[in-house]
Amino acid sequence: MANEAKNKKVVAVMGTSTPSRELFDMAREVGFLLAKNDIAVVCGGMGGVMEAVCLGVSSAGGISVGILPSFRDDPNPYVTIPIGTTFGEARNAIIAAAGGVAIAIGGGFGTLSEIGLALRMGKTVIGLHTWQAFDPEGMSLPVIYVKSPEDAVGRALSFL
Amino acid sequence: MANEAKNKKVVAVMGTSTPSRELFDMAREVGFLLAKNDIAVVCGGMGGVMEAVCLGVSSAGGISVGILPSFRDDPNPYVTIPIGTTFGEARNAIIAAAGGVAIAIGGGFGTLSEIGLALRMGKTVIGLHTWQAFDPEGMSLPVIYVKSPEDAVGRALSFL
Amino acid sequence: MANEAKNKKVVAVMGTSTPSRELFDMAREVGFLLAKNDIAVVCGGMGGVMEAVCLGVSSAGGISVGILPSFRDDPNPYVTIPIGTTFGEARNAIIAAAGGVAIAIGGGFGTLSEIGLALRMGKTVIGLHTWQAFDPEGMSLPVIYVKSPEDAVGRALSFL
Amino acid sequence: MANEAKNKKVVAVMGTSTPSRELFDMAREVGFLLAKNDIAVVCGGMGGVMEAVCLGVSSAGGISVGILPSFRDDPNPYVTIPIGTTFGEARNAIIAAAGGVAIAIGGGFGTLSEIGLALRMGKTVIGLHTWQAFDPEGMSLPVIYVKSPEDAVGRALSFL
Repeated sequence: MANEAKNKKVVAVMGTSTPSRELFDMAREVGFLLAKNDIAVVCGGMGGVMEAVCLGVSSAGGISVGILPSFRDDPNPYVTIPIGTTFGEARNAIIAAAGGVAIAIGGGFGTLSEIGLALRMGKTVIGLHTWQAFDPEGMSLPVIYVKSPEDAVGRALSFL
Repeated sequence: MANEAKNKKVVAVMGTSTPSRELFDMAREVGFLLAKNDIAVVCGGMGGVMEAVCLGVSSAGGISVGILPSFRDDPNPYVTIPIGTTFGEARNAIIAAAGGVAIAIGGGFGTLSEIGLALRMGKTVIGLHTWQAFDPEGMSLPVIYVKSPEDAVGRALSFL
Repeated sequence: MANEAKNKKVVAVMGTSTPSRELFDMAREVGFLLAKNDIAVVCGGMGGVMEAVCLGVSSAGGISVGILPSFRDDPNPYVTIPIGTTFGEARNAIIAAAGGVAIAIGGGFGTLSEIGLALRMGKTVIGLHTWQAFDPEGMSLPVIYVKSPEDAVGRALSFL
Repeated sequence: MANEAKNKKVVAVMGTSTPSRELFDMAREVGFLLAKNDIAVVCGGMGGVMEAVCLGVSSAGGISVGILPSFRDDPNPYVTIPIGTTFGEARNAIIAAAGGVAIAIGGGFGTLSEIGLALRMGKTVIGLHTWQAFDPEGMSLPVIYVKSPEDAVGRALSFL
């Protein structure tokens, strides 16, 4: 029946706008695998890791949502639903809250802020080739570090 | 080709959480018609007009995005992609910016704030059974007032 | 004793960036009277009504806080504490929430959005030469309309 | 002349709500020294490091602004101007943008997110007994790490 109620599960993917080729390919694979598992992906909607993830989602026939810094910005061409905002760098606080789980890919200060925000909100954060951090007592971040897109998505699915 | 680039066009729908039966039906029809025209709908993701719009979108096989006040809130059952935030009443400022055009349905202070925000951002606002307002010089709002879901969606499409 | 605990009471003042001379003078008087009553004023920190209010506060030796659209914007010269943001037009949602009472002065879509947001948050809103609005049932806004700065501040004080 | 134009300089102070006694004392000293240098302090307005900073500011006769998670929250008793919001954890994105310089004190995920946000916005960040972080290439954060309140404030002043 066409209008049967069903919210999609959502994963937030955060990542640098200037990834290496290798990281771009990993991000694309993360997007592809999430979409294959019927997960909607929320990201920042611009270039780099964000474009790679949307490309992967698109090639699996899935849905991505891009939360843009400004409604005057052009999204990457692969994001299914671009959502304009006026929040600039503060849009990270929307993306961090968006999903049931967050996957952080690569470096960049924005990615670090999203890891902090997501943990602050009590979210599970999975890290792929991303920041390590240590608090003043030397405690490391409670990020689940993985080495491959398959592991990232596998762990994400286990928490949804 | 599966990964051909194509961003969907987006319309923001704003509306009261306590609509009359007649208004609920109109909001559902707005959602249905937008989705039939391959438009993605962004709304507040909760009850009332928001639920009606998502129901309409769902019954047309389309995609709706619900920007929730809190990631701890339960979305209505028909929203395709619920996006948690921490913004509370301020999420109106996300919804107002989200679309190329905004459709305001019914009363409620939140709807009034979204009309003001969308106009402030230079968006086209279409009003269906919603607020009238007059500035101190007696000038009325530059809202395009319509009487039916068909007119609301027809006018929205003409601006996208 | 210098560090005796005492939070100041706060009033949010919202208003157009393009006021008439008469409205500018009224806004300045509102700021002056609030500061004379030891109220801190929060506003948008830019020109027009915002500058007038900060000028009035300053001339009474009070404190104003300006929530700027961007931390790259220059505040008006009279705001005591300029607070940069990245929120653009969405900063209205900060200002509306900021005070125990909100005073809206003049027209402008931003002012309309702040009236809607403040009412949505359950705040008392006092209107001086500002928007009138009517919901689809013809009900008017629960704004307390006044005609003079003295009345605006008098009514604001009665709610703090 | 009473209404001579002069915006105060602003420093954002970020820090954990559960500091040790030693860290509380350092945060209080940071607030005291900033206020003695006529700097207005913006912080999160709640307990722990935030309360300590406001206490220090207050004992020097200065001005602190507290950006609260909700306008329904009670601020700490020492903040001069409490500013209610609806942004919850996302208020970190306001605080990070607020000042010309940011000082991060102690651990906590919120503090980490504010470091990331402030760096993302191109702000200077000074760290006192706070997070260390390393990106995937092993590069450390461009935070200016200091060991004492005097050094924190001295470095902050040099950038204003």
